[in-house]
Amino acid sequence: MIAEVIAVGTELLLGQTVNTNAARIGSGLADAGLEHHYSTVVGDELGRMVDAIRLALERADVIVITGGIGPTQDDITREAICGATGRSMVFSEEYADRLRRWWASRGREMPDSNLKQAEYPDGAQLLDNPKGTAPVVFLEHEGVLIFALPGVPAELEALLDLHVMPMLRQRSGEGLVLSRVIRTYGESESQVGEMLADVYDKSGNPSMAFLATAAEIKIRLTAHAATAEEAEELIAPFESAIRERMGSLVFGADDQTIESIVLGLAEQKGWTIATAESATGGMVASRITSVPGASRVFRGSVVAYDERVKRVNLGVSADLIEAHGVVSEPVAIAMAEGVAHFLEADVGIAVTGSAGPDPQDKAVGTMVIAVRTPEKAMARTVRLPGDRERVRTYTTTGALQLARLAMSGVWWSGEPKHGRWV
Amino acid sequence: MIAEVIAVGTELLLGQTVNTNAARIGSGLADAGLEHHYSTVVGDELGRMVDAIRLALERADVIVITGGIGPTQDDITREAICGATGRSMVFSEEYADRLRRWWASRGREMPDSNLKQAEYPDGAQLLDNPKGTAPVVFLEHEGVLIFALPGVPAELEALLDLHVMPMLRQRSGEGLVLSRVIRTYGESESQVGEMLADVYDKSGNPSMAFLATAAEIKIRLTAHAATAEEAEELIAPFESAIRERMGSLVFGADDQTIESIVLGLAEQKGWTIATAESATGGMVASRITSVPGASRVFRGSVVAYDERVKRVNLGVSADLIEAHGVVSEPVAIAMAEGVAHFLEADVGIAVTGSAGPDPQDKAVGTMVIAVRTPEKAMARTVRLPGDRERVRTYTTTGALQLARLAMSGVWWSGEPKHGRWV
Repeated sequence: MIAEVIAVGTELLLGQTVNTNAARIGSGLADAGLEHHYSTVVGDELGRMVDAIRLALERADVIVITGGIGPTQDDITREAICGATGRSMVFSEEYADRLRRWWASRGREMPDSNLKQAEYPDGAQLLDNPKGTAPVVFLEHEGVLIFALPGVPAELEALLDLHVMPMLRQRSGEGLVLSRVIRTYGESESQVGEMLADVYDKSGNPSMAFLATAAEIKIRLTAHAATAEEAEELIAPFESAIRERMGSLVFGADDQTIESIVLGLAEQKGWTIATAESATGGMVASRITSVPGASRVFRGSVVAYDERVKRVNLGVSADLIEAHGVVSEPVAIAMAEGVAHFLEADVGIAVTGSAGPDPQDKAVGTMVIAVRTPEKAMARTVRLPGDRERVRTYTTTGALQLARLAMSGVWWSGEPKHGRWV
Repeated sequence: MIAEVIAVGTELLLGQTVNTNAARIGSGLADAGLEHHYSTVVGDELGRMVDAIRLALERADVIVITGGIGPTQDDITREAICGATGRSMVFSEEYADRLRRWWASRGREMPDSNLKQAEYPDGAQLLDNPKGTAPVVFLEHEGVLIFALPGVPAELEALLDLHVMPMLRQRSGEGLVLSRVIRTYGESESQVGEMLADVYDKSGNPSMAFLATAAEIKIRLTAHAATAEEAEELIAPFESAIRERMGSLVFGADDQTIESIVLGLAEQKGWTIATAESATGGMVASRITSVPGASRVFRGSVVAYDERVKRVNLGVSADLIEAHGVVSEPVAIAMAEGVAHFLEADVGIAVTGSAGPDPQDKAVGTMVIAVRTPEKAMARTVRLPGDRERVRTYTTTGALQLARLAMSGVWWSGEPKHGRWV
């Protein structure tokens, strides 16, 4: 079965509200194994709402509408369904009584405008809403199932789970959609695309997509199958091929962030971590401390923005800075060693660089990352494209990636596949 | 002119990514004074993408497409534009050279797949992208303007401002649209709405909208007028009324960030700044160092995540921690004094708190901010709602807001209007 989503509301078009409802419905439809080709936003205007529903009737088996079924004048989704299906509006005395009881049970008299919620297109059913007064309007029209749900996210979510998903699962027979996201850092989207070109050519079910988000390139595999086991079986050979091809560029899957991986490695090794940051100005520490429970292994950080702080507070010698410049591998290693000593940590992660827009010591985009563990200390220089924020964000992820490679010993072992950005 | 938005990406349909791009484009179109009737999401599938563009060609004067113009195999928006307009694909040697130079300037050879980004539908122009390699594809087809932009939010945002909005403002003819954004921190959106209810009732031209973004509430005034002077005259009385009503909750306007205001104040006073962060873990320092030239006044930071670091490295006495707890005003003040002393700065900004999900010393959401200047030191305790990320983000902005109020002497003078969140 093919589904289509229509979200109603001028505030969505104006960008005053982000359309999280469509994402919620989309994820529910995928879970229920339905294909979903289009998702449309339309303003609170009857003619255009009717057109949007008519178009969806032509191309889908299931239409999920959200918004426009409340009690105010601009709530006209019921009218639009009547318009698109050529049905008349009827009134449910039974639902009106239920509404009156709902208000009475809260010690209040019902405003008359609420009676609008007892109206429905002829032939539809009103499904109960335990979280509010607007019922789900459910209509089967010429073989197409139409659900109209409230736009309030908490009500929408509850009603999807209570009514829509069970009905769709039952009707669609078996089958579901399963996704695996493989997360990488170190190469550009185009480079990842080239590395995986032949794997991509073999894809279909699962389908394969590349997503560039902040400093990461994610590879998403999506399989349709009768059961979760079958979907996993479809995904497994593709996941293996990708992991083998990309080697240590892959740091995790699904909701594993690189910072959570780094913290997990530290716990496993019994090591504590400290960071020394110049150009990233605290971003590595912020990312690490975004993980609940980071305090078990994370000591803290020295943001050594001023050169004097590098010397006085991290103990980087003036001679070293003089000889190599502040943006250099020897200085980065000294910062990593210095902060590990100063904050009594086992692992020191250090960043120094020239983030721009004005060059500092070295050309803009030159960033040096060093990691020190009880086993070894190494540094790496990278040249990153883009503006200040981009250079800082990439370097932050790069520092976490190198910390991961260092802590697991992969960096020292000479594994070459960690990409050009770290 | 009537606009339509098409966002391309199966990840949007599956609900793996929320469609913030459509909201960003919608708000831009509204600012430029364009009507906007439909916004559609379509997956990475050529036939359906062609259909979506064809439909938009029938009902809109301007089509803004986002996504699907990167270098990988699933990026097929260019092909879909060709399909919908009946144009052939051509190749820009000039843009290919530009791409090669872009990669060469970063010391790398360009992957061949990137040449895809030098392709364009016959008759289109490629508009430069200073934030990445995918250019904007701009095509005027039978009187309809088509813009195809990358889906990476930071690039999309920059390219809307750089190319799309100026071209649309120019084409939309009569008059112009001028916006002023007044930026506040310290109260909720509904509280700001109530404070300004009577101002809102008088609005029309300029229109007035409230935008909650991260920890800020922004008030946007948008005036339509024949000239910039007339638009400014329409905006001025509203801006004055809002600033008067909201007092020190207002920290800036338009592109003034609170961190740039704080740095400007420090330069003006001849003061240097250091931060000591526990619960925010480096976020205050990251925000400050996001401003180019921060090094003129920013010394650095000590992220004292571990209690031992607060004692040993910031000199907070064990007795003080014992007596008041680590999340307390005396400890926060000692951290601010300690880091100012340790990094030899004039201003110390300190944060300690319990960001959750597990309580630490005090209840989750209890955050203490202290600021020390050469004039005085004070602390303030706030109780913030929401999850860990929200609490940390709000506290970061709150710390910068209190630094602003402290450095300008407003905090000490007892000005009461700085809101419930700082």
